[in-house]
Amino acid sequence: MRMRRKKHREDRLGACSDIFISDINTLSGDIGKIFGNNNPLHIEIGCGKGKFMRELSERNPQINYIAIEKNLDVLVLAAEKIKDADIKNVRFIAGDANILSEIDLKSKAERIYINFCDPWKKSRQAKRRLTHENFLNIYKEILVPNGEVHFKTDNTKLFEFSLNSFSAYGLMMKNITLDLHASSFEGNIMTEYETLFSEKGQPIYRCEVVFNK
Amino acid sequence: MRMRRKKHREDRLGACSDIFISDINTLSGDIGKIFGNNNPLHIEIGCGKGKFMRELSERNPQINYIAIEKNLDVLVLAAEKIKDADIKNVRFIAGDANILSEIDLKSKAERIYINFCDPWKKSRQAKRRLTHENFLNIYKEILVPNGEVHFKTDNTKLFEFSLNSFSAYGLMMKNITLDLHASSFEGNIMTEYETLFSEKGQPIYRCEVVFNK
Repeated sequence: MRMRRKKHREDRLGACSDIFISDINTLSGDIGKIFGNNNPLHIEIGCGKGKFMRELSERNPQINYIAIEKNLDVLVLAAEKIKDADIKNVRFIAGDANILSEIDLKSKAERIYINFCDPWKKSRQAKRRLTHENFLNIYKEILVPNGEVHFKTDNTKLFEFSLNSFSAYGLMMKNITLDLHASSFEGNIMTEYETLFSEKGQPIYRCEVVFNK
Repeated sequence: MRMRRKKHREDRLGACSDIFISDINTLSGDIGKIFGNNNPLHIEIGCGKGKFMRELSERNPQINYIAIEKNLDVLVLAAEKIKDADIKNVRFIAGDANILSEIDLKSKAERIYINFCDPWKKSRQAKRRLTHENFLNIYKEILVPNGEVHFKTDNTKLFEFSLNSFSAYGLMMKNITLDLHASSFEGNIMTEYETLFSEKGQPIYRCEVVFNK
């Protein structure tokens, strides 16, 4: 979804600078210093406008979150949501998923959330899909043993691709559902996108993937 | 699907007796004797009226097939199809999937087909589903190392259950598709049931499961 460039975007991002990790090298050290505690770390790749992250972080104050987003026009909205709600356990990184390969986060994250990422429909674009083997290699590096990826999408072809990719990688999946909102899964937090599409009757796919190294 | 009892059912089954395995103990020995050759063995659990098995066995004369069906009213139609087409590489067993646990087929089958089995919708019936762990134990015993189960269904909840069951069992899945007839999968043979339901626009789910012991 292309968004118009936000007015005063840089000023507004600047006003949230205290919840941004601008120097990713600080992550190679003790992450506890960033959050002021040693709580477990969860990461969301592609947080969009931040609705999911706000609800998630409010429900789980005992977890530290890093939210990554490449589109500055939505990232500014996400950051302002967290700032306005005075939430203390979220930090942002401006960038795409590839930035994770540049960060020294080896075995530091317990969970990664990927919600409604770009399906990259053409087969020659398969390597850009966030569930492609190349990204699984990155997640494996970042996650603690038995760390998990929690994945949601409304795109049938992407879910199909992802199930095959996870299984071929030797990962165990659990709580696979082909219609999340009709399932018995409790505690689902809807993203902006999910709200929009589920109102149209589109089923939402979801699964959890365990990286047992 | 309940069927009216076929007229002269026993006589008609009797006329096909040469392609039935009536004494399952013969399977504990050399299966090559049954087929007159040592070709690989594939099994279909629940062959119904036999459309799938007829096409499959005609396409693959170098494979030996055992087709199992509990409902004698459809089994008689399947057997007559094979007999009338003078197909030599199929044998039938009258029984349900549990009969496989009574047969000594240890590591003898290369593949098992399960098409549109009963979804057993109530959760207390989960153990009856042919993709329940208890049945996976049986398949594991029967299959050669890296033997496969090829599974199709139109039932969303059953497919969901099955994906979770396969993954929890530690099995690798491949060629998972959430809409078989819209997929690039080639060589699909439709069952009677599949033809009926796909005409109504119902997506068909399919996957292959590798038992790497």
